[in-house]
Amino acid sequence: MARVLGIDPGTQVAGYGALDTKSDGSPHSFVECGVVRLKRDDPLEIRLLRLRESLLEIVGRLNPDAIAIESPFVGRNVKAAFSVGEARGVALVIAAERGIPVRQYAPAQVKSTVAGHGRATKQDVDRLLRLQVTMPEGKVPADATDALAVAMCDAVQSSSVQNQSANLLR
Amino acid sequence: MARVLGIDPGTQVAGYGALDTKSDGSPHSFVECGVVRLKRDDPLEIRLLRLRESLLEIVGRLNPDAIAIESPFVGRNVKAAFSVGEARGVALVIAAERGIPVRQYAPAQVKSTVAGHGRATKQDVDRLLRLQVTMPEGKVPADATDALAVAMCDAVQSSSVQNQSANLLR
Repeated sequence: MARVLGIDPGTQVAGYGALDTKSDGSPHSFVECGVVRLKRDDPLEIRLLRLRESLLEIVGRLNPDAIAIESPFVGRNVKAAFSVGEARGVALVIAAERGIPVRQYAPAQVKSTVAGHGRATKQDVDRLLRLQVTMPEGKVPADATDALAVAMCDAVQSSSVQNQSANLLR
Repeated sequence: MARVLGIDPGTQVAGYGALDTKSDGSPHSFVECGVVRLKRDDPLEIRLLRLRESLLEIVGRLNPDAIAIESPFVGRNVKAAFSVGEARGVALVIAAERGIPVRQYAPAQVKSTVAGHGRATKQDVDRLLRLQVTMPEGKVPADATDALAVAMCDAVQSSSVQNQSANLLR
Protein backbone atom coordinates (compact mmCIF):
# COMPACT_ATOMS: atom_id res chain seq x y z
CA MET A 1 0.00 0.00 0.00
CA ALA A 2 1.21 3.49 -0.82
CA ARG A 3 -0.08 6.72 0.64
CA VAL A 4 0.13 9.98 -1.26
CA LEU A 5 -0.48 13.40 0.22
CA GLY A 6 -1.60 16.11 -2.20
CA ILE A 7 -0.87 19.70 -1.21
CA ASP A 8 -2.49 22.80 -2.70
CA PRO A 9 -0.25 25.57 -1.37
CA GLY A 10 -1.41 29.09 -0.55
CA THR A 11 -0.53 31.94 1.80
CA GLN A 12 -4.13 32.43 2.96
CA VAL A 13 -5.64 28.95 2.59
CA ALA A 14 -3.74 25.75 1.81
CA GLY A 15 -5.46 22.46 1.05
CA TYR A 16 -4.31 18.92 1.68
CA GLY A 17 -5.74 15.51 0.85
CA ALA A 18 -4.41 11.98 1.26
CA LEU A 19 -5.27 8.75 -0.55
CA ASP A 20 -4.14 5.16 -0.10
CA THR A 21 -3.49 2.95 -3.10
CA LYS A 22 -3.21 -0.82 -2.84
CA SER A 23 -0.81 -2.61 -5.14
CA ASP A 24 -3.60 -5.04 -6.18
CA GLY A 25 -5.25 -2.33 -8.29
CA SER A 26 -8.32 -1.92 -6.04
CA PRO A 27 -9.80 1.60 -5.89
CA HIS A 28 -7.88 4.36 -4.17
CA SER A 29 -9.21 4.86 -0.67
CA PHE A 30 -9.79 8.23 0.94
CA VAL A 31 -7.73 8.94 4.07
CA GLU A 32 -8.30 12.55 4.99
CA CYS A 33 -8.57 16.01 3.49
CA GLY A 34 -8.82 19.51 4.86
CA VAL A 35 -7.55 23.06 4.74
CA VAL A 36 -5.12 25.15 6.72
CA ARG A 37 -6.58 28.65 7.11
CA LEU A 38 -4.12 31.41 7.82
CA LYS A 39 -5.01 34.72 9.44
CA ARG A 40 -5.28 37.50 6.91
CA ASP A 41 -4.09 40.07 9.46
CA ASP A 42 -0.90 38.20 10.34
CA PRO A 43 2.30 39.31 8.59
CA LEU A 44 3.30 37.06 5.69
CA GLU A 45 6.23 35.49 7.58
CA ILE A 46 3.95 34.50 10.49
CA ARG A 47 1.42 32.97 8.08
CA LEU A 48 4.20 30.99 6.40
CA LEU A 49 5.46 29.76 9.77
CA ARG A 50 1.92 28.68 10.76
CA LEU A 51 1.65 26.89 7.40
CA ARG A 52 4.93 25.11 8.09
CA GLU A 53 3.78 24.07 11.57
CA SER A 54 0.45 22.79 10.26
CA LEU A 55 2.02 20.87 7.37
CA LEU A 56 4.62 19.36 9.70
CA GLU A 57 1.78 18.14 11.93
CA ILE A 58 -0.18 16.75 8.95
CA VAL A 59 2.86 15.05 7.39
CA GLY A 60 3.90 13.64 10.79
CA ARG A 61 0.44 12.25 11.46
CA LEU A 62 -0.39 10.90 7.97
CA ASN A 63 3.16 9.69 7.21
CA PRO A 64 2.81 9.75 3.40
CA ASP A 65 5.09 7.82 1.04
CA ALA A 66 4.99 10.64 -1.51
CA ILE A 67 3.90 14.26 -1.73
CA ALA A 68 2.11 15.45 -4.88
CA ILE A 69 1.91 19.12 -5.78
CA GLU A 70 1.00 21.10 -8.88
CA SER A 71 3.96 22.35 -10.88
CA PRO A 72 4.33 26.10 -11.51
CA PHE A 73 1.84 27.18 -14.12
CA VAL A 74 1.78 29.99 -16.63
CA GLY A 75 -1.12 32.31 -17.30
CA ARG A 76 -1.70 33.57 -13.81
CA ASN A 77 -0.49 36.91 -12.65
CA VAL A 78 2.94 37.55 -11.17
CA LYS A 79 1.53 38.46 -7.75
CA ALA A 80 -0.29 35.14 -7.48
CA ALA A 81 2.86 33.31 -8.61
CA PHE A 82 4.85 34.96 -5.81
CA SER A 83 2.28 33.92 -3.20
CA VAL A 84 1.90 30.36 -4.41
CA GLY A 85 5.69 30.18 -4.71
CA GLU A 86 6.17 31.25 -1.09
CA ALA A 87 3.79 28.56 0.14
CA ARG A 88 5.26 25.97 -2.28
CA GLY A 89 8.73 26.68 -0.87
CA VAL A 90 7.49 25.96 2.65
CA ALA A 91 5.83 22.68 1.58
CA LEU A 92 8.76 21.47 -0.53
CA VAL A 93 11.28 22.04 2.27
CA ILE A 94 9.20 19.83 4.57
CA ALA A 95 9.19 17.03 1.99
CA ALA A 96 12.99 17.26 1.66
CA GLU A 97 13.49 17.41 5.44
CA ARG A 98 11.41 14.27 5.90
CA GLY A 99 12.97 12.49 2.89
CA ILE A 100 9.58 12.14 1.19
CA PRO A 101 9.69 12.05 -2.64
CA VAL A 102 7.94 14.96 -4.35
CA ARG A 103 6.05 14.51 -7.60
CA GLN A 104 4.82 17.51 -9.53
CA TYR A 105 1.97 17.58 -12.04
CA ALA A 106 0.84 20.34 -14.37
CA PRO A 107 -2.69 21.58 -13.59
CA ALA A 108 -3.95 20.33 -16.98
CA GLN A 109 -2.53 16.88 -16.24
CA VAL A 110 -4.38 16.76 -12.91
CA LYS A 111 -7.67 17.71 -14.59
CA SER A 112 -7.10 15.33 -17.45
CA THR A 113 -6.27 12.39 -15.16
CA VAL A 114 -9.12 12.99 -12.71
CA ALA A 115 -11.86 14.34 -14.98
CA GLY A 116 -10.88 13.08 -18.43
CA HIS A 117 -9.84 16.33 -20.08
CA GLY A 118 -7.40 19.14 -19.33
CA ARG A 119 -9.98 21.91 -19.43
CA ALA A 120 -12.41 20.36 -16.94
CA THR A 121 -14.08 22.81 -14.57
CA LYS A 122 -13.62 22.66 -10.82
CA GLN A 123 -17.15 21.21 -10.62
CA ASP A 124 -16.25 18.43 -13.08
CA VAL A 125 -13.15 17.57 -11.05
CA ASP A 126 -15.10 17.56 -7.79
CA ARG A 127 -17.87 15.38 -9.24
CA LEU A 128 -15.54 12.84 -10.85
CA LEU A 129 -13.35 12.72 -7.78
CA ARG A 130 -16.41 11.77 -5.70
CA LEU A 131 -17.22 8.98 -8.16
CA GLN A 132 -13.75 7.52 -7.72
CA VAL A 133 -13.14 7.91 -3.99
CA THR A 134 -15.51 7.89 -1.05
CA MET A 135 -15.22 11.41 0.24
CA PRO A 136 -16.86 12.87 3.37
CA GLU A 137 -20.53 13.77 2.89
CA GLY A 138 -21.40 17.41 2.39
CA LYS A 139 -19.31 20.35 1.44
CA VAL A 140 -15.55 19.95 1.18
CA PRO A 141 -13.55 23.20 0.89
CA ALA A 142 -12.37 23.85 -2.67
CA ASP A 143 -8.69 23.87 -1.69
CA ALA A 144 -9.05 20.45 -0.04
CA THR A 145 -10.67 19.07 -3.22
CA ASP A 146 -7.85 20.58 -5.29
CA ALA A 147 -5.28 18.88 -3.08
CA LEU A 148 -7.12 15.57 -3.26
CA ALA A 149 -7.26 15.87 -7.06
CA VAL A 150 -3.45 16.20 -7.20
CA ALA A 151 -3.15 13.17 -4.90
CA MET A 152 -5.57 11.26 -7.15
CA CYS A 153 -3.54 12.23 -10.23
CA ASP A 154 -0.41 10.88 -8.56
CA ALA A 155 -2.15 7.69 -7.41
CA VAL A 156 -3.38 6.99 -10.96
CA GLN A 157 -0.09 7.92 -12.64
CA SER A 158 2.00 5.90 -10.15
CA SER A 159 -0.18 2.80 -10.37
CA SER A 160 -0.22 2.95 -14.18
CA VAL A 161 3.59 3.14 -14.12
CA GLN A 162 3.61 0.13 -11.78
CA ASN A 163 1.23 -1.77 -14.06
CA GLN A 164 3.40 -1.00 -17.05
CA SER A 165 6.45 -2.27 -15.15
CA ALA A 166 4.53 -5.41 -14.18
CA ASN A 167 3.58 -5.97 -17.85
CA LEU A 168 7.18 -5.58 -18.90
CA LEU A 169 8.24 -8.19 -16.35
CA ARG A 170 5.79 -10.80 -17.63
CA MET B 1 23.85 49.29 17.56
CA ALA B 2 21.50 47.48 15.20
CA ARG B 3 22.42 44.80 12.72
CA VAL B 4 20.39 44.22 9.58
CA LEU B 5 20.72 41.20 7.32
CA GLY B 6 19.65 41.70 3.70
CA ILE B 7 18.59 38.62 1.79
CA ASP B 8 18.30 38.30 -1.98
CA PRO B 9 16.41 35.03 -2.37
CA GLY B 10 16.83 32.61 -5.26
CA THR B 11 16.54 28.90 -5.97
CA GLN B 12 19.93 28.71 -7.71
CA VAL B 13 21.92 31.48 -6.03
CA ALA B 14 20.85 33.47 -2.98
CA GLY B 15 22.73 36.52 -1.70
CA TYR B 16 23.08 37.85 1.81
CA GLY B 17 24.73 40.91 3.30
CA ALA B 18 24.82 42.37 6.82
CA LEU B 19 25.48 45.90 8.04
CA ASP B 20 25.77 47.41 11.51
CA THR B 21 24.32 50.82 12.25
CA LYS B 22 25.23 52.81 15.35
CA SER B 23 22.58 54.97 16.95
CA ASP B 24 24.97 57.97 16.92
CA GLY B 25 24.51 58.38 13.16
CA SER B 26 28.04 57.27 12.22
CA PRO B 27 28.38 55.45 8.87
CA HIS B 28 26.96 51.97 8.51
CA SER B 29 29.69 49.39 8.90
CA PHE B 30 30.07 46.31 6.75
CA VAL B 31 29.80 42.99 8.57
CA GLU B 32 29.75 40.27 5.95
CA CYS B 33 28.27 39.37 2.60
CA GLY B 34 28.22 36.33 0.39
CA VAL B 35 26.17 33.94 -1.66
CA VAL B 36 24.63 30.52 -1.17
CA ARG B 37 25.08 28.54 -4.38
CA LEU B 38 22.68 25.66 -4.90
CA LYS B 39 23.35 22.70 -7.16
CA ARG B 40 21.51 23.02 -10.46
CA ASP B 41 21.17 19.24 -10.72
CA ASP B 42 19.52 18.82 -7.31
CA PRO B 43 15.71 18.58 -7.26
CA LEU B 44 14.02 21.84 -6.25
CA GLU B 45 13.03 20.57 -2.79
CA ILE B 46 16.63 19.60 -2.00
CA ARG B 47 17.88 23.01 -3.14
CA LEU B 48 15.29 24.71 -0.93
CA LEU B 49 16.32 22.57 2.04
CA ARG B 50 20.00 23.45 1.46
CA LEU B 51 18.99 27.11 1.25
CA ARG B 52 17.15 26.77 4.56
CA GLU B 53 20.16 25.10 6.22
CA SER B 54 22.55 27.77 4.91
CA LEU B 55 20.31 30.66 5.95
CA LEU B 56 19.79 29.11 9.40
CA GLU B 57 23.57 28.95 9.79
CA ILE B 58 24.03 32.56 8.59
CA VAL B 59 21.22 33.92 10.78
CA GLY B 60 22.49 31.94 13.78
CA ARG B 61 26.04 33.22 13.33
CA LEU B 62 25.29 36.87 12.47
CA ASN B 63 22.33 37.20 14.86
CA PRO B 64 20.65 40.13 13.06
CA ASP B 65 18.10 42.45 14.71
CA ALA B 66 16.12 42.67 11.47
CA ILE B 67 15.90 40.98 8.11
CA ALA B 68 15.45 43.11 4.99
CA ILE B 69 14.15 41.63 1.76
CA GLU B 70 12.77 43.00 -1.49
CA SER B 71 8.98 42.95 -1.76
CA PRO B 72 7.38 41.07 -4.67
CA PHE B 73 7.79 43.06 -7.84
CA VAL B 74 5.82 43.27 -11.03
CA GLY B 75 7.24 43.19 -14.53
CA ARG B 76 9.13 39.94 -14.31
CA ASN B 77 7.83 36.74 -15.72
CA VAL B 78 5.60 34.32 -13.84
CA LYS B 79 8.23 31.57 -13.82
CA ALA B 80 10.75 33.87 -12.12
CA ALA B 81 8.10 34.96 -9.62
CA PHE B 82 7.45 31.32 -8.68
CA SER B 83 11.16 30.68 -8.12
CA VAL B 84 11.82 33.84 -6.14
CA GLY B 85 8.61 33.16 -4.19
CA GLU B 86 9.78 29.66 -3.24
CA ALA B 87 13.08 31.00 -1.92
CA ARG B 88 11.35 33.97 -0.23
CA GLY B 89 9.05 31.55 1.59
CA VAL B 90 12.05 29.67 2.97
CA ALA B 91 13.75 32.89 4.14
CA LEU B 92 10.60 34.41 5.66
CA VAL B 93 9.82 31.27 7.69
CA ILE B 94 13.30 31.44 9.25
CA ALA B 95 12.74 35.07 10.28
CA ALA B 96 9.42 34.15 11.90
CA GLU B 97 10.91 31.09 13.62
CA ARG B 98 13.70 33.19 15.11
CA GLY B 99 11.36 36.09 15.99
CA ILE B 100 13.34 38.50 13.81
CA PRO B 101 11.33 41.41 12.35
CA VAL B 102 11.09 41.42 8.54
CA ARG B 103 11.08 44.66 6.58
CA GLN B 104 10.28 44.62 2.88
CA TYR B 105 11.30 47.24 0.32
CA ALA B 106 10.29 47.64 -3.29
CA PRO B 107 13.23 47.27 -5.72
CA ALA B 108 12.86 50.92 -6.82
CA GLN B 109 13.01 52.05 -3.20
CA VAL B 110 16.25 50.12 -2.66
CA LYS B 111 17.83 51.71 -5.75
CA SER B 112 16.54 55.13 -4.86
CA THR B 113 17.84 54.95 -1.28
CA VAL B 114 21.25 53.53 -2.17
CA ALA B 115 21.95 55.18 -5.53
CA GLY B 116 19.71 58.27 -5.52
CA HIS B 117 17.16 57.26 -8.13
CA GLY B 118 14.80 54.34 -8.66
CA ARG B 119 16.12 53.45 -12.11
CA ALA B 120 19.76 53.18 -11.15
CA THR B 121 21.68 50.37 -12.86
CA LYS B 122 23.28 47.52 -10.94
CA GLN B 123 26.64 49.20 -11.59
CA ASP B 124 25.40 52.47 -10.05
CA VAL B 125 24.14 50.63 -6.99
CA ASP B 126 27.41 48.72 -6.61
CA ARG B 127 29.52 51.89 -7.00
CA LEU B 128 27.48 53.97 -4.58
CA LEU B 129 27.30 51.15 -2.06
CA ARG B 130 31.12 51.00 -2.05
CA LEU B 131 31.27 54.75 -1.40
CA GLN B 132 29.06 54.34 1.65
CA VAL B 133 30.36 51.14 3.22
CA THR B 134 33.81 49.59 3.25
CA MET B 135 33.30 46.42 1.29
CA PRO B 136 35.84 43.66 0.66
CA GLU B 137 38.33 44.47 -2.09
CA GLY B 138 37.80 42.89 -5.49
CA LYS B 139 34.80 41.24 -7.02
CA VAL B 140 31.71 40.67 -4.92
CA PRO B 141 29.05 38.38 -6.45
CA ALA B 142 26.09 40.36 -7.81
CA ASP B 143 23.60 38.59 -5.54
CA ALA B 144 25.65 39.51 -2.47
CA THR B 145 25.71 43.17 -3.59
CA ASP B 146 21.95 43.05 -4.13
CA ALA B 147 21.45 41.72 -0.62
CA LEU B 148 23.76 44.34 0.85
CA ALA B 149 21.84 47.06 -1.04
CA VAL B 150 18.58 45.93 0.62
CA ALA B 151 20.33 45.93 3.99
CA MET B 152 21.65 49.44 3.26
CA CYS B 153 18.17 50.60 2.29
CA ASP B 154 16.83 49.32 5.60
CA ALA B 155 19.70 50.83 7.58
CA VAL B 156 19.08 54.26 6.01
CA GLN B 157 15.29 54.06 6.29
CA SER B 158 15.40 52.83 9.89
CA SER B 159 17.90 55.45 11.02
CA SER B 160 15.93 58.22 9.32
CA VAL B 161 12.79 57.00 11.10
CA GLN B 162 14.77 57.03 14.37
CA ASN B 163 16.05 60.54 13.64
CA GLN B 164 12.53 61.71 12.90
CA SER B 165 11.34 60.19 16.17
CA ALA B 166 14.21 61.89 17.97
CA ASN B 167 13.27 65.22 16.38
CA LEU B 168 9.68 64.77 17.45
CA LEU B 169 10.81 64.14 21.02
CA ARG B 170 12.87 67.34 21.24
